[in-house]
Amino acid sequence: MKKLILNLCLLAGMLPSPLHAQEAIMPGMRDIKSPVVSEAGSVQFWLNAPHAKKVYITGNITRFNKGDFDPSEQPAKGLVPLKNDGGLWEVRLDSLVPDLYTYKFVVDGIEVLDPLNSHVLRDVASVSNMVLVPGEESKDFVAAGVPRGSVHTSWYRSCFRDTDRRLSIYLPAGYDSSDRHYPVLYLLHGMGGDETAWLDQGRAAEILDNLIARGEAEPMIVVMPNGNMALDAAPGHGPLGLDQPNFYLPHTMDGVFETYFPEIVNYVDSTFRTIPAKESRAVAGLSMGGFHSLYLSANYPGLFNYVGLFSPAVDPTQFNKNGLPEMYRDRRVKIKDQFRQGVRLYYMAIGEDDFLYEDNKKFRAELDADSIPYIYKESKFGHEWTNWRRYLADYLPRLFR
Amino acid sequence: MKKLILNLCLLAGMLPSPLHAQEAIMPGMRDIKSPVVSEAGSVQFWLNAPHAKKVYITGNITRFNKGDFDPSEQPAKGLVPLKNDGGLWEVRLDSLVPDLYTYKFVVDGIEVLDPLNSHVLRDVASVSNMVLVPGEESKDFVAAGVPRGSVHTSWYRSCFRDTDRRLSIYLPAGYDSSDRHYPVLYLLHGMGGDETAWLDQGRAAEILDNLIARGEAEPMIVVMPNGNMALDAAPGHGPLGLDQPNFYLPHTMDGVFETYFPEIVNYVDSTFRTIPAKESRAVAGLSMGGFHSLYLSANYPGLFNYVGLFSPAVDPTQFNKNGLPEMYRDRRVKIKDQFRQGVRLYYMAIGEDDFLYEDNKKFRAELDADSIPYIYKESKFGHEWTNWRRYLADYLPRLFR
Repeated sequence: MKKLILNLCLLAGMLPSPLHAQEAIMPGMRDIKSPVVSEAGSVQFWLNAPHAKKVYITGNITRFNKGDFDPSEQPAKGLVPLKNDGGLWEVRLDSLVPDLYTYKFVVDGIEVLDPLNSHVLRDVASVSNMVLVPGEESKDFVAAGVPRGSVHTSWYRSCFRDTDRRLSIYLPAGYDSSDRHYPVLYLLHGMGGDETAWLDQGRAAEILDNLIARGEAEPMIVVMPNGNMALDAAPGHGPLGLDQPNFYLPHTMDGVFETYFPEIVNYVDSTFRTIPAKESRAVAGLSMGGFHSLYLSANYPGLFNYVGLFSPAVDPTQFNKNGLPEMYRDRRVKIKDQFRQGVRLYYMAIGEDDFLYEDNKKFRAELDADSIPYIYKESKFGHEWTNWRRYLADYLPRLFR
Repeated sequence: MKKLILNLCLLAGMLPSPLHAQEAIMPGMRDIKSPVVSEAGSVQFWLNAPHAKKVYITGNITRFNKGDFDPSEQPAKGLVPLKNDGGLWEVRLDSLVPDLYTYKFVVDGIEVLDPLNSHVLRDVASVSNMVLVPGEESKDFVAAGVPRGSVHTSWYRSCFRDTDRRLSIYLPAGYDSSDRHYPVLYLLHGMGGDETAWLDQGRAAEILDNLIARGEAEPMIVVMPNGNMALDAAPGHGPLGLDQPNFYLPHTMDGVFETYFPEIVNYVDSTFRTIPAKESRAVAGLSMGGFHSLYLSANYPGLFNYVGLFSPAVDPTQFNKNGLPEMYRDRRVKIKDQFRQGVRLYYMAIGEDDFLYEDNKKFRAELDADSIPYIYKESKFGHEWTNWRRYLADYLPRLFR
C-alpha cells in the first residue's frame, strides 16, 4: 500500500519529500521501484547503495537534463550526481523529450546497471538499462491495439566462407493469412551492430506495426541482415557461442558485403512472398549501413528504387588504405548511371552534431554538382538512435506508393 | 601483444602470477578480458574497481566451485570473494562442470554486472551475465557447422481479454525449402518466464539444431507460447512497452491457460505445415510449464501422445485457495482416462534438491497406485536450468519415432 501511494505521488509529478521517502522506502527494504516515469517527461531513479561514497547516472538520458540537481557538482559531461538520503540514492531528471533512453549508474567509479530495471540493451559490447519516456515523439515505439507483424530469425547460405549467416525478417500483420505478395525494404545496421540492432535499439517492428496500422506506410517485408561479414550472427547466436568478438573486425566496409549481397536478395525472394522487382525494393541503413546502402544501390542500379542514407559513412578510403575495391571506385559515374536507370527516392538525413556531418556535406556537394535529385533532412543531435528511429519513421511513408 | 600472452597462459590452465598480472594489466588500462574460459573447466574473472572494499562473485557458477579461494572468507552460500591486487580484483573458479552459467559481482553490497561481458540474460526480473564452460555436457548449447532452424515470433488472437498474444516458434532446418509436414512439440516455460525463456536460458534452438543434425531427434516444429495469461508478451515486446510487470500476476495456474490453449493449437495448425494429429503432437514444460503440461494432457486426452514434466509443479491448491477450477479437478480420473485413450510417453524428471521433490514423489505414488506407466529420471541439483536443458535433450530423442 505504501508503494502504491508513492507511485501515485510520482505519477502526479510531485517529488516526495525526504520524510515521505524515508517512511515509504526504508533502505534495505527494497520496496522501491526504479525508474519511475511520469507523464510529464520526468523520470525518478532510485538506488539502494548504503556503502557508496558517490553515485552518478550516465547514458543518453542525462544529455537533455534540466533537472533539480546542482550542475556545479557535475564532474564530467553526461554524469549527473544522485543525492544520498541515508544510503538510498535518488535523482529526478526533468523535461525529457519523449524517447527511448539508455542509462547506467556509476557507483564509486564502477558502472552499475539499475538492479530494479530488467530492461537492458546491448549496443556493440556495452550493456545499458532502457527507459521509455512516453509522448508524441515516442508513441510508435510501443505497439498497442494494432495488428502485429511477425519477426523471423533465419539463416541463408553464403558462398563467402561457405557458412550460414543469420538475418532478421519482419513480415507484416496478415502475411500468414493471405496469399498477397509484398514489397521489401532491406534495412541495414551500423558498425558494431548486427541483425538484432534495428529491432532492439531501433524498435523497427513496433514502428512498422504502428505506421502500417494507421495507413501511413504500405505493408512491407523488412529484411535486416548482418552487415559484418566476419561474423555469422549476433553475439551468442552463432558458432562462436558466447565468445566475445572484437569490435574491430575485417570485412565491414571493404566491398565484401556488397559483393555477396545478391545472395540475400535471392534467399529472400525465393523464401518469402515478395514482389521481386526494383519498383518494389528499397534499401536504407544507418552509419555503416548507410554506406552499404549508398554503394549497393550504386553498384546494382537495377536493384533498388528507394535509397535511404541515415547518418551515412560515405568515404570508403578509411577502411581501404591499400586501394579501393571495385565496389567503391567511380562513385560519381556509378551514381549518375544509377539515376539514368531510375531512382524514385534518394533520401539522406543527418544530425547537426554528427561527426560525419562534414563528410556528408561534401557528398551532397558532389550530388549537387552532378544534378542528382535527393531529399535531405537535417536534425538536432548526433550519431545516435534518437535520430535513426525518427529517420526510419520519416522514410517508411515514402516507400512503395 | 601482452593481452595475447595473458590469454594463452590462461588457456593453458595456468594462473598468471600477480607479477604477470600487474605487468600485463595495469588498473585503469582496461586492457583486461573477463571472463576468460579455459578448456580445463576454469574461468578467470577480472574487475577493475580501485575504490572497492570488498568484491564477491555470485550466481549459479559459484555453487560447484572448488577454486583457489579461502572458504572461510565466504560470508554466505554462493558468494565467493575476489582478491584485490592494486584495485584490480580477480578470482578463478575451477573444476566447473561444462554448462551455461550465470554470475554477477557484488561490490560493497551492490550487484554489478561484469562490464567486460556483454552476454546478459534476464530471468524473471533479474539480469545476470552468462558464461559458457565448454565440454561434453554443454556442447549442444552452441550450434556450429550444422543446418540451422529458424525462429519466429508471431502473434495469435486470444478470446481471453480479446488480445494478440506473442509466441515463439522454432521451424527446423529445411522447412522453407520443402513441402514436408512436421510433428509439433509445445514447450512451456515456468512462472516468471515467457515465450523467450526456452530460447534464451534453455538454448532450445541450438539443442534442437544439434540433435536433429545428428539424427538423434526427429525434425519438428517447437511452439513456445507465453503461459502467463495476464501478459500478452515478454517484457518490452507487448502493449505495456517498457513498464515492468509484477512477478506475481493472476492467471498463471488458475485454469485459464488450459482453457484457452486450443486457440494456440488452432493457430499453429492453420499457419504452419504441421501434422495435425495426436500421434504427432507432444507437450513438455518446466515447473509451471510442467504443471500446464500435466493438466493440458489430462484435460485434452485427444491432443498429446507425448508428455514431458520437467521439475513440475503438480499441486493446484496453492494458486486456487477458493476452490479448484474444473481443469484441476478429478486428476486421477482424468489421467486414467487419458491413458485409456493412449499415451505413447509420460516422462518425468526432477532434481534431488528440488523444492518440489516431495510433491512429485506423492504424485508418482498416485500414478503407481493407478498403474500408470511413466519414465522417471532423477538428477542432481535443484529447480534450475542446468537440469531443464538436460531434460530437454533427454526428452527430444524419444519423440515421434
